[in-house]
Order: sequence, then structure tokens, then C-alpha cells
Amino acid sequence: MSELSGANTAQEAVSAGVLDLFGLLAYAELVAFFRLSGDAALAPSLAEKAALGEMAVAEFGHFVLLRERIAGLNAEPDQAMLPFVAPLDAFHARTAPSDWLEGLVKAYVGDGIAADFYRAIAELLDPQSRALVLEVLADTGHAEFVVPRVRAAIEQDPPTAGRLALWARRLVGEALAQAHRVAADRAPLAALLVSRGTAAGGPQGDIGRMFARLTDAHDQRMTALGLADWERAQQEETR
Amino acid sequence: MSELSGANTAQEAVSAGVLDLFGLLAYAELVAFFRLSGDAALAPSLAEKAALGEMAVAEFGHFVLLRERIAGLNAEPDQAMLPFVAPLDAFHARTAPSDWLEGLVKAYVGDGIAADFYRAIAELLDPQSRALVLEVLADTGHAEFVVPRVRAAIEQDPPTAGRLALWARRLVGEALAQAHRVAADRAPLAALLVSRGTAAGGPQGDIGRMFARLTDAHDQRMTALGLADWERAQQEETR
Repeated sequence: MSELSGANTAQEAVSAGVLDLFGLLAYAELVAFFRLSGDAALAPSLAEKAALGEMAVAEFGHFVLLRERIAGLNAEPDQAMLPFVAPLDAFHARTAPSDWLEGLVKAYVGDGIAADFYRAIAELLDPQSRALVLEVLADTGHAEFVVPRVRAAIEQDPPTAGRLALWARRLVGEALAQAHRVAADRAPLAALLVSRGTAAGGPQGDIGRMFARLTDAHDQRMTALGLADWERAQQEETR
Repeated sequence: MSELSGANTAQEAVSAGVLDLFGLLAYAELVAFFRLSGDAALAPSLAEKAALGEMAVAEFGHFVLLRERIAGLNAEPDQAMLPFVAPLDAFHARTAPSDWLEGLVKAYVGDGIAADFYRAIAELLDPQSRALVLEVLADTGHAEFVVPRVRAAIEQDPPTAGRLALWARRLVGEALAQAHRVAADRAPLAALLVSRGTAAGGPQGDIGRMFARLTDAHDQRMTALGLADWERAQQEETR
């Protein structure tokens, strides 16, 4: 009897964690929609405005999917999103791009590391939930759009690389700070992450491997943008 | 022979006018998307953010339809939109809402009068073009969303009515100024409007009737918002 109720409690904790994850992702997608459409309004050409608008609309579609799933779990979507409004708004307020290029790097590097993190959590979920998370995290064309534009800007004006590389560092630092805040405030979500570690034989090693994978993927994006060379040159200098 | 080539020229003029109209509408829808998503980011609740986001996405869908039709006419969508970027941007720069309520009134009153005007032009078009214009002008839920919110705000704070009524006047004034500018700059579009008048037996009377209809519909929207009473009281005072 006590074992059974223990199993139920663990099950409930995981469900609360899944609901937290969906609420977080739903608000993240809604904000991504606002941010991309805001960036689109600043795009230099009509064709770029339209292309970014299309990506924004795709993010809104993801938001709608998540909202439906939350409602399907008999939860109130607004309530599920509410705990994540302050940390996500704080992240975006602290990383407001000062120009078009910073916006592009944020859309690719910032959203990229967030998506990798969510995907890592998704591995723990039931197949239906995992499929939903992978669907809403599918790239909506960011990489293809951002990479050639940033590379062209650096080619035209090489010092841009340094500015954008520092900007990317700040994005990652702010993202980690807010992720910490969320993990500290939201026990169900933190439990989901720890249960994943436990299942794989010890939380430390597993979380460590997850961070190693996130870092690798981030480095690949920095290389794609042409920002990794600047990072390496900096490291040589300070050695 | 000369009659035939005359007919061809008239046909070409109408086609150029239709292309102008599609270009104007396409850019108007793209801007409506940016504006609504910008307003949505400022909405007081998550549910309202989502509702306005949905309307914005619907406007983007209209933009995509128009862009496809322009491409189908073997024209370059960006080129077709370009002549209307400056006047529409000027209108929006001169009527940037200073708060949420002004944004709501702009979305309903401003877009309403613009839509009535485009619908009036659409009556002249071939059935396929007319159907497209009517489709992209279909109300995406503005009225239902805006009217109860503005009425509730006025009920809570009656002096708001005066401020919003003056705001609505300014919107109409700025819209007419930019419409004049467009008509003066774009001969094909102006020709479309005049050909309509000529077909109905004299441009003056027909354009006059069109403006009377636009004014009636505008008055109905002001009444729906609860702003017409304030207008009437003002007129009594100044009599």
C-alpha cells in the first residue's frame, strides 16, 4: 500500500514536471513569436521581413499546439505558463538586441541552446510528450536564414566578429542564470531533471554529460557563424 | 483598330491598378501583422496576448495569399509593395498608440475604415480578384475583441471616452491624408477608382456615395465603442 502510494506520488511529480515543461515551452514559443515578429519589422528588406514573419508564425503554431496539450491535461494554459513569465521576460529584457545582427545571433545561438536543453529533458518523457516537444522545437528555418547573413556581415567588416562573439557569450550567461532561477523556483521541473539522472545511474554524471553535449552543439553553432575563430584567437592571446 | 488598341490600353490600366491594389493590400497586411503582434506583446493578460497573436497570424496568412496572387500575375511582390511602404509607414509612425486602449481603437476604427475603402474598390474588380480582396479583408476577430474592452474601460473611467474619440478622429484624418498621397502618386490606382465612377455614370456622384457609405460605417463603429455619444455631446456644446 505504501509502495503503491509512493509510486503514485512519483508519477504525480513527473506529471507536474511535464506540465511545467509544457508551460515553460508554451510561454517561450509565445515570446519567440513576439520577438521574431519584432525583429522582422526591423529587417532591412521586404523579403527578409516576410521570411522572419513566416518563422514567427511557425512559432505561434507551436505555441497553439502546446496550449492544446496543456488543456488536454485538464490544466489551465495561462496558469501553466505563469511561473515562467518573469524569468523569460527577464532574460529577454537583459538581452534586447541593439541591432539587426545581434537579433540574428540571438535567434540562432540563444534559441539553439535553449532548444538543446529542452530536447535533453524530452528524452525522459513518455513517447507522446516527447514527440510534441520535438515537434515544437523543430528548426523553423533560423539556421538557414541567420548563418549566411552573419558570415557576410563579418566578411564585410571583420571586427564585427569580436562584438558578436562577446554578445553570444552574454546570451549564454544570461540564459544559464535564468535557467538556474527556474530550477530553484520550480521543484517539479527540477525533479524531472534529477529523475532523469537517477534513472541513468547517478545524477551527477548524467547531468555532466548533458552539459557537455550542450556545449558541443553551441560550439558548432559558433563555428557555423564564423565566430569560433575569434574565440580561439582570443584564447591564444590570453595564454 | 484604334478602338481595339484603346480597349487594350484600358485593360492594361485596370490590370496595373489591380496590381497596385494587391501591392498596397499586401504591405498593409504585413504591417498589420507587425502591429498586432506588437500590441499583443503589450496586452495585459496571457489570454489577451494569445488572442491578439492569433489575429496577427491570420493577417500574415492574408499577406501570403496576396503575395502568391501577385507572383501569379508575373509580378515581383516586393516591387508591387514598394510604392506603398512610405505612405503606410508614415501613417503608422504618426498614429503610434500611446497605450493599450489606443491600440485597440486603432485596430478596430483605423483598420475598419481602411477595409471599407478597399472593399469599395473591390466592387470594380473581376470576380476572382474581388473574392481575394474580400477574403483578406474578412474580420479576424477585431470587433469581438475590441468592443467589450473599450466599453468596459469607458464605464470604469468615463473621461476616457473623450480621449479615445479625439484619437479616432486623428486616425481618420491621418488615414485620409495618406490615401490622398497614394492617389496622387499612383496613377493606376487612381484610374481604377475613377473608372469605377465613370462606369456608374459620373465619377463625382459615385465617389460621393462611396464616401457617404464609408462615413456611415465609421459612425456605426464609433457607436459600437460607445464613443458616438461623446461626439454628439460635443456637437451640442459647440452649437
